Amino acid sequence: MSNLEYGYLGPPGTFSEQAISNYCARYGGSTTACGSIRDIVEAVTADRVDLGLLPLENSLEGSVNLSLDLLYQHPELKLYREIVLPIEQYLLARPGVKKEEIKEIYSHPQAIAQSGDYLANEFKDAKIIYTDSTAAAAKKALADRKRAAVGSIRLAEIYELEIMAENLQGDLPNATRFVLAAKKDKDLGPNNHLGEAAASDFKTSIICAPKVNEAGVLHRILGKFAEENIDLTRIESRPSRQRLGEYIFYIDLKGCSSDQHLSSALEEVKKISSYFRLLGSYPKTVIE
Amino acid sequence: MSNLEYGYLGPPGTFSEQAISNYCARYGGSTTACGSIRDIVEAVTADRVDLGLLPLENSLEGSVNLSLDLLYQHPELKLYREIVLPIEQYLLARPGVKKEEIKEIYSHPQAIAQSGDYLANEFKDAKIIYTDSTAAAAKKALADRKRAAVGSIRLAEIYELEIMAENLQGDLPNATRFVLAAKKDKDLGPNNHLGEAAASDFKTSIICAPKVNEAGVLHRILGKFAEENIDLTRIESRPSRQRLGEYIFYIDLKGCSSDQHLSSALEEVKKISSYFRLLGSYPKTVIE
Repeated sequence: MSNLEYGYLGPPGTFSEQAISNYCARYGGSTTACGSIRDIVEAVTADRVDLGLLPLENSLEGSVNLSLDLLYQHPELKLYREIVLPIEQYLLARPGVKKEEIKEIYSHPQAIAQSGDYLANEFKDAKIIYTDSTAAAAKKALADRKRAAVGSIRLAEIYELEIMAENLQGDLPNATRFVLAAKKDKDLGPNNHLGEAAASDFKTSIICAPKVNEAGVLHRILGKFAEENIDLTRIESRPSRQRLGEYIFYIDLKGCSSDQHLSSALEEVKKISSYFRLLGSYPKTVIE
Repeated sequence: MSNLEYGYLGPPGTFSEQAISNYCARYGGSTTACGSIRDIVEAVTADRVDLGLLPLENSLEGSVNLSLDLLYQHPELKLYREIVLPIEQYLLARPGVKKEEIKEIYSHPQAIAQSGDYLANEFKDAKIIYTDSTAAAAKKALADRKRAAVGSIRLAEIYELEIMAENLQGDLPNATRFVLAAKKDKDLGPNNHLGEAAASDFKTSIICAPKVNEAGVLHRILGKFAEENIDLTRIESRPSRQRLGEYIFYIDLKGCSSDQHLSSALEEVKKISSYFRLLGSYPKTVIE
């Protein structure tokens, strides 16, 4: 089992904590709650934790853009693993409370949004009150019988709340995607779980900016991957923040950078880029 | 002047309100605060407002992903205008309060994150406390002399707070991008400002999904735009939410769909897409 220390976006009870606790239950390691995504990155770069859990997509708790920007701003960071957490929203209240007692429903605006249809149907007359986090909502529900909170099942365990309803988000597939980032030169010891997977199950992330900014430039970059028959799994353009109208691209690809096809495509892309960074090749863990 | 009604993400004092008030000061119209991004879309589809202001990028107040998903889920919506608001963070406190009196600093986690360097240098010992919105932080600051809030200059006006420091976000260019959406068949009357601009200053947004999901498919789509020499200004892939591993692409292009080059490229892309939607061609307003 691993003795690594993982930084995550707290407080306890958030979906970030749910993801990292599940991960540690499987592979070992301990966790440190951080106050913000920026704090997680600082804890990693200052060696206060070994790895940081950064939310990248569809997260309730923080800005995806902020994680992407911080990865760009910290070239000393490398990605080691992707963690996918299916998001399920629960309605939680004090033990024994009945639905008709509930007059106020607390949660983070996005958790409320994801449970919109359910709440509109079942709690037409309840007052919806936004909180900073789903954990803060749980605390509110704990304090009064007329209150319920929307959030993860983890909150029920931590705050000893009862599950009043489950699957509030309905049928839509809904998951948050995180990555574990550490310093490139970090000695992570014999923690094989960070690299455990068949090479074919790896994903590779890069950030690149073209040398010239003109029509068709992204088409040319993607041509290099198409030639080597490499699948993209995600692409996003972001303003470079250096000059207006200049863009950098975040691209995720199927495969490991040690694969010959991928590595030769990456070499070609590097040649036509003014900025190029391999964020890492890493396997995926899906939390159940 | 226009008599249109605009829905925006409240409460008053948010950056969303700053954007829409500035816009209405220029073009007329009145505003309605909505409780969530989902509520804005509902207000538009139920004709309670004429247009809704949706945050798309780098917003403090809501999920960009949620806006993108809602646009996909509501084919009856069309985009009419882009509004770009430069984000400037101010430190606000009760009139006459001095820096050394401040023991607690309140704001939304992202406003705090954007002011990270300034706060770390100037207020090392102050306690940072997160709030739901920058408006909630302003209310906290109003209640006690030992508190300051981080947020927009609008908060100073609304809550009669004093500006203690400005430009907390530092030198990084920082802006939030919104769009105004309305129902396609909505009669917006003679509100020329919604279409006012040279055709060359228009942007066109589409959502598309390729017929086949294989390596090189995005390369092929972008090839159609490269052939017609059309600039991309943004691209993002999102999971389709229908089948795992299927993606839809959100693409912004320079130009108006009535332009012959753009319209013929769009026709070509439509042919190789299983899903294709023109979100609209629209001009941009930059708030000063």
